[in-house]
Amino acid sequence: LADRVRKFNGWGHEGEEPSAGEIEGLEKNWTGFFGVEAFDPVAPPSLDEIQLRAPRIQLPAGLAEFCSERAHDRALHSYGRSFADLARIYRRDFSDPPDAVAHPANEDQIAALFDWCAGARVALVPFGGGTGVVGGTGSPGADHAGWISVDMGGFDRIQEIDKTSRAARIQGGILGPDLEAGLKPHGLTLRHYPQSFQFSTLGGWIATRAGGHFATLYTHIDDLVESVRALSPAGPWESRRLPGSGAGPSPDRLLIGSEGILGIITEAWMRLQERPRFRRSAALSFADFEAGAEAVRALSQAALHPTNCRLIDAHEAAEAGAGSGADPVLLLGFEQAHHEVDAPMEEALACCADHGGRLVPDGDEAAVTWDKFAALHANVMEATKRAIREVTGRDGQLTCRFTHVYPDGPAPYFTFKALGRADELMDQYEAIKRAASAAVMQGGGTITHHHAVGRAHRPWYDRQRPAPFAAALTAAKRALDPQGLLNPGVLIDPA
Amino acid sequence: LADRVRKFNGWGHEGEEPSAGEIEGLEKNWTGFFGVEAFDPVAPPSLDEIQLRAPRIQLPAGLAEFCSERAHDRALHSYGRSFADLARIYRRDFSDPPDAVAHPANEDQIAALFDWCAGARVALVPFGGGTGVVGGTGSPGADHAGWISVDMGGFDRIQEIDKTSRAARIQGGILGPDLEAGLKPHGLTLRHYPQSFQFSTLGGWIATRAGGHFATLYTHIDDLVESVRALSPAGPWESRRLPGSGAGPSPDRLLIGSEGILGIITEAWMRLQERPRFRRSAALSFADFEAGAEAVRALSQAALHPTNCRLIDAHEAAEAGAGSGADPVLLLGFEQAHHEVDAPMEEALACCADHGGRLVPDGDEAAVTWDKFAALHANVMEATKRAIREVTGRDGQLTCRFTHVYPDGPAPYFTFKALGRADELMDQYEAIKRAASAAVMQGGGTITHHHAVGRAHRPWYDRQRPAPFAAALTAAKRALDPQGLLNPGVLIDPA
Repeated sequence: LADRVRKFNGWGHEGEEPSAGEIEGLEKNWTGFFGVEAFDPVAPPSLDEIQLRAPRIQLPAGLAEFCSERAHDRALHSYGRSFADLARIYRRDFSDPPDAVAHPANEDQIAALFDWCAGARVALVPFGGGTGVVGGTGSPGADHAGWISVDMGGFDRIQEIDKTSRAARIQGGILGPDLEAGLKPHGLTLRHYPQSFQFSTLGGWIATRAGGHFATLYTHIDDLVESVRALSPAGPWESRRLPGSGAGPSPDRLLIGSEGILGIITEAWMRLQERPRFRRSAALSFADFEAGAEAVRALSQAALHPTNCRLIDAHEAAEAGAGSGADPVLLLGFEQAHHEVDAPMEEALACCADHGGRLVPDGDEAAVTWDKFAALHANVMEATKRAIREVTGRDGQLTCRFTHVYPDGPAPYFTFKALGRADELMDQYEAIKRAASAAVMQGGGTITHHHAVGRAHRPWYDRQRPAPFAAALTAAKRALDPQGLLNPGVLIDPA
Repeated sequence: LADRVRKFNGWGHEGEEPSAGEIEGLEKNWTGFFGVEAFDPVAPPSLDEIQLRAPRIQLPAGLAEFCSERAHDRALHSYGRSFADLARIYRRDFSDPPDAVAHPANEDQIAALFDWCAGARVALVPFGGGTGVVGGTGSPGADHAGWISVDMGGFDRIQEIDKTSRAARIQGGILGPDLEAGLKPHGLTLRHYPQSFQFSTLGGWIATRAGGHFATLYTHIDDLVESVRALSPAGPWESRRLPGSGAGPSPDRLLIGSEGILGIITEAWMRLQERPRFRRSAALSFADFEAGAEAVRALSQAALHPTNCRLIDAHEAAEAGAGSGADPVLLLGFEQAHHEVDAPMEEALACCADHGGRLVPDGDEAAVTWDKFAALHANVMEATKRAIREVTGRDGQLTCRFTHVYPDGPAPYFTFKALGRADELMDQYEAIKRAASAAVMQGGGTITHHHAVGRAHRPWYDRQRPAPFAAALTAAKRALDPQGLLNPGVLIDPA
């Protein structure tokens, strides 16, 4: 397994391709949906099809020993995995690759990068697993003599386990599966499963405020962090291990979500749980999405804390094999390590029944307060559908589900499929996204619930945050990184 | 009730005094404990016994109309309610009172204060209920032409209730009882009850990261804040109402705990709960504190989420009327609005029985991870007892209880009673506190779990926080408050 090579041109490892049958099935479904005869498929690029600009920087020997200029490394670190990234990849557009990819094995090597880059005006872009979908790990723009992608894969160890306090000190570059595999022999789990789990890292989760698969209570990585250590250009930033504190504003909460602009997260003490032994799950259908949403609101305000509580609309339910396609479906689950979960499941089922929920045979982002949800949902659906029609000339598919729910509001996740044209994909995508984002913002939502901000969401993030907080964050950034080495352009403007 | 006047010289309203019998009872108990014949009681000062320096500033007419120079107002706003504050009050030491007390009724008046004070080099110290015990609302030192205490009592309204999302927009200066009285007719509650509840304010709770009486899950005000609005010298800071977000570092978390140095909190959207209908409680005794601590650890790691889970040692239990005084006692409680709490209570009782807990007839701060608790407890007890002996020449009483517990650690709360000498009280108190604080810090604890930092905990806070965070906070402060008007000396050094 360790020998497997990540694809530079898509999700997964080299050699993992959909079968001809799978491609044929997809094509058949979607040509039918869009009313076209056939698609004109574009093959993913091979490495020798792409042109990489020669590195613009000359690394000193001390850095060169842990930095790579190999084409595959530079291509893999050019992009994340958003639709926009993939569109560029398939256009063979690798016009601003990193000049080098650093693979530090310890903090001294990161500090050496800071030192040299400060003099050389070279930007540093931290890279965890490269699964981001908001442009947080890509090119930082042209204001530098070059840029280096800092791949944290060498920081992949569990350093220490404290079973008494149920916590572990874990390095930032560890991948999800390696983290869980290391905890499993101790009967412990972090129980944080973002969709990118297989290829994303602990440090990446912390830097982006990742959301796990838990639908209630401990949804974001924020609550699982006991303390965190990062290396900033001004030195190490390490908080004390504490179960709770009232000592000034939380230092951890300023690093959590900082997307690489204040420092590079090298390790963290994480709060763990015992592995669950008791489980129950159910799927329920509702007359319409609004009835399902009301049931979920009642559920989330009843302090039952289901681990799964995902409402998905009729289309998505059918695609996921959970329901007939006629009704929206709620996937509900409870799990615990220490006690049976029958009682809360029965309470939850009764709560669903109050809103017309019926049990169905088992199946397997923005966020907004409940008072604004109905209007936001209607407006995002309407604005996005209209934009798809305007941009592509025909209807697309637009679906919605709740990925997370809170007593004061849900995190609705909208997905669209539209018939694009290869030479206009980026413009088409951005026009549709712009319409949807504007409707989210106008409806009182956040531009991102668990995908971070990156460069993709910047314009909306700027409108969403309090202006004095932007001033505070900018000032903090200047104090720690006066040359603006770290991830320039993310969250705030370069100095 | 509205006519009652707060005492300037102690807790409560004027006219509320302990009875002669109560004083006699206390005296009898404690003369016996310390082995002395009698105390030499000092009466609280009356207003005409204290000397207040003449105001050093001349307010312009626009400010004078909502500012007071009355002696009672200036005396009341000179101090919080810590032991050190009370020691100074009883010594009739009011040597640095505020030059004026502002009673703004709206944000424009606060902005007017900022404008005038910037030119006049006058410091502003926000004041909620004045119940703090860490010197956060007192004199900011001598680096200014004067100082004004900004009493937020005029911001006392519930502005808006959103029953659908179960949240309310509430002004920062509202007192605990008024807040709950306003929510009650709607069947809602904030359910945040710090010990200072009667005289402390919502804005004060947010500025200090207050801890409520809930022992697990939602312990700190932090988790109950949906969005917050503050006025900074650089303008209003208002976050969006969101149930969850992954958009950059949380702006709210930088204001929560900022102790008045970044802005004055004028209102917040708070997450509410329905009023509980189902309740169970129990008291259990344990062979020793360590056995009780192990039971509490198991309980808090079992995801049962009791609302009360306070372990108190034998002395405190006896004083609180909960136990014989021979054994430590665990007060355990569950409450819910939507479902019975018998099942979790039975689980919790079984968990206690595993550690030798026995039911007893019903009775009614630092924080550290579990792995370090036993050593920290032993060292704090030993160091504090030794300091009491060294400082006062005889043994005192030192007790410990858990006020809050988390899966990864408890918040132990140590209380000491020692025989002081009136003319040395401050030095004696500080010497004992210094010894205890050093043991807490050395044992890996936080200097404060829910009492904030203020001026009293500054030396330990400085050692506890990450240095780059101090740099970030200092830079943020300079960006928002370049003249250093707001609560100088709290959390960071004056500019």
